[in-house]
Amino acid sequence: MSTPAADPIPRSVSWRRGRVRILDQRALPHRVLHVECTTADDVCDAIARLVVRGAPALAVAGAYGVALAAHRSRSPAAVDAAARRLAAARPTAVNLARGVEQALRAYRRGGAAGALACAEALAEDDVARNRAIGAHGAGVVADGARVLTHCNAGALACVGYGTALGVIRAAAEQGRRVHVWVGETRPVLQGARLTAWELGRLGIEATLVADTVPASLMARGEIDVVVVGADRIAANGDVANKIGTYALAVLARQHGVPFYVAAPTATIDLATPDGDAIVIEERDPAEVLTVAGVPVAPREARARNPAFDVTPARLVTGVVTEVGIARPPYRRSLPSHVRRAPAPPGVTVAAHP
Amino acid sequence: MSTPAADPIPRSVSWRRGRVRILDQRALPHRVLHVECTTADDVCDAIARLVVRGAPALAVAGAYGVALAAHRSRSPAAVDAAARRLAAARPTAVNLARGVEQALRAYRRGGAAGALACAEALAEDDVARNRAIGAHGAGVVADGARVLTHCNAGALACVGYGTALGVIRAAAEQGRRVHVWVGETRPVLQGARLTAWELGRLGIEATLVADTVPASLMARGEIDVVVVGADRIAANGDVANKIGTYALAVLARQHGVPFYVAAPTATIDLATPDGDAIVIEERDPAEVLTVAGVPVAPREARARNPAFDVTPARLVTGVVTEVGIARPPYRRSLPSHVRRAPAPPGVTVAAHP
Repeated sequence: MSTPAADPIPRSVSWRRGRVRILDQRALPHRVLHVECTTADDVCDAIARLVVRGAPALAVAGAYGVALAAHRSRSPAAVDAAARRLAAARPTAVNLARGVEQALRAYRRGGAAGALACAEALAEDDVARNRAIGAHGAGVVADGARVLTHCNAGALACVGYGTALGVIRAAAEQGRRVHVWVGETRPVLQGARLTAWELGRLGIEATLVADTVPASLMARGEIDVVVVGADRIAANGDVANKIGTYALAVLARQHGVPFYVAAPTATIDLATPDGDAIVIEERDPAEVLTVAGVPVAPREARARNPAFDVTPARLVTGVVTEVGIARPPYRRSLPSHVRRAPAPPGVTVAAHP
Repeated sequence: MSTPAADPIPRSVSWRRGRVRILDQRALPHRVLHVECTTADDVCDAIARLVVRGAPALAVAGAYGVALAAHRSRSPAAVDAAARRLAAARPTAVNLARGVEQALRAYRRGGAAGALACAEALAEDDVARNRAIGAHGAGVVADGARVLTHCNAGALACVGYGTALGVIRAAAEQGRRVHVWVGETRPVLQGARLTAWELGRLGIEATLVADTVPASLMARGEIDVVVVGADRIAANGDVANKIGTYALAVLARQHGVPFYVAAPTATIDLATPDGDAIVIEERDPAEVLTVAGVPVAPREARARNPAFDVTPARLVTGVVTEVGIARPPYRRSLPSHVRRAPAPPGVTVAAHP
């Protein structure tokens, strides 16, 4: 899988000569490095350490991990065990477990070649779906719009193109002038390190701010729309996404700013009834107590580090998917092919806002 | 001025052998260092570079700066000019300009000795007023309370004891069990570096979180009360404080959590009608683009760095001052001796919440 010459952002994950090659997002924006994984456990480790992150990218990394296990071992039990470890490497994004499961089913049908074909198809599919998300969502970004995004829901969070940044990118490609406010997204600074880097590569005007700033930008009328990604969307439309998203949704509602979530339908988990049922990953407090390896708090200080929060559906203006923009009530606006779980009736999807 | 042996936190600013000695807050929490200022411009520089910060501390630092100028120069014009530079070193906190003005008036009446006596009196007065703020405010922190604070409104932001942390400290001294959630307060990390350090020294239980976390703590019912400081309070009760305060106030209101501001009456500026009239300092974008000197964004990235925001009076449950808790409407609850400017009628102050 090579990156099309036209794309200024390298693929986050790919298969190369029997290895899984992962762009090391920890080294960005200063260096473009790759980690070469030779075992499924290398992939697990890369996922746990945030070498690769972002719900759609995790789906593909998990699938490639299964393909790697299948290529390294003749024992179905070993492949099963590797798949279980991969699926559990991070708990919040539903996409990871789904990508692993799809590759495992393909392995059971078609062996190692089947698993790899599945992973490769998921990778291609990701880019196509993100372009469709962009096409459906571009309309929410008007000419001259000042868009706020949080964390990184760009090409790096996927295999390519991006979800929330895909929407912004599509608007820019349609010739609209766009300015993006980028929340830095402590503690891991995905906004500062990744989103600012992507927007720079794409030539889209952006300004970085601390996570404390968007509220006063909204109060001064300097934000027209918020677009973020998602790690899991429950059946009732509650959205788990990077910690800080919920606060932005409350503030957007208070200030009359539309709040959109952009995510492939694979992020919608109808088996999870609502946000209360979503497991929120607690990460190492060291991420809060240090920045870029430098300690910023007293040595004896304690910290809590939840990686995600839940935004209730009532605060979400719409979910931009590859099949259209779903709006509340989601049980009725979701297309029937999305309904994979014990679930409600169907469907109509708005083509545009 | 020596720190009483009982106080585990060194004084932020003091006069020592003809110099102004300032605790270097940039070096905390890792090292306790002092900067020795020999000229008023050294003091200006220390203020601009955040060696000393916090509205009440700035008042005293500014006054000592005038005393220093008066000791170094026999020319009243030079002292006047130094006072103007000191007052302008940071624009948002009204206390700085007031401290400078008081010392300058004392200089005109009593020369260098008068200016120094004024600065020393302001320093002693600060600690006494903060203890009174603590006494009035302790009641807002119930036994077992989980308190959120932001930035540093502790002893370090004053000469001693603290305003918001003074309230928390007084509750702890009264034997109440308290847990403090400390927002790290990007970009300068006063929460992580200073508040966590103070609370550690005081033996008060604290947990550090990224600024994105309090919203979900509130949603889960894990915050009982918010107590923050202030840099300027307008006549209508609008509060300028560290960037991020406004978002916390909106979130507190949404979740039914009381939101208190703790500040000496010197922070109330009746000459400023409302928050729109408060100048918000924009600081160097480098504070956002780097952390502890380490670049965290692409080299070509742009950033905005407003240091403060304005919280409208309607979101403030009460302002804890040294004369009691002022509650809306402030024009009626402010004591008459606070009314120093073209201002409204008086008064009654609630003794306790």
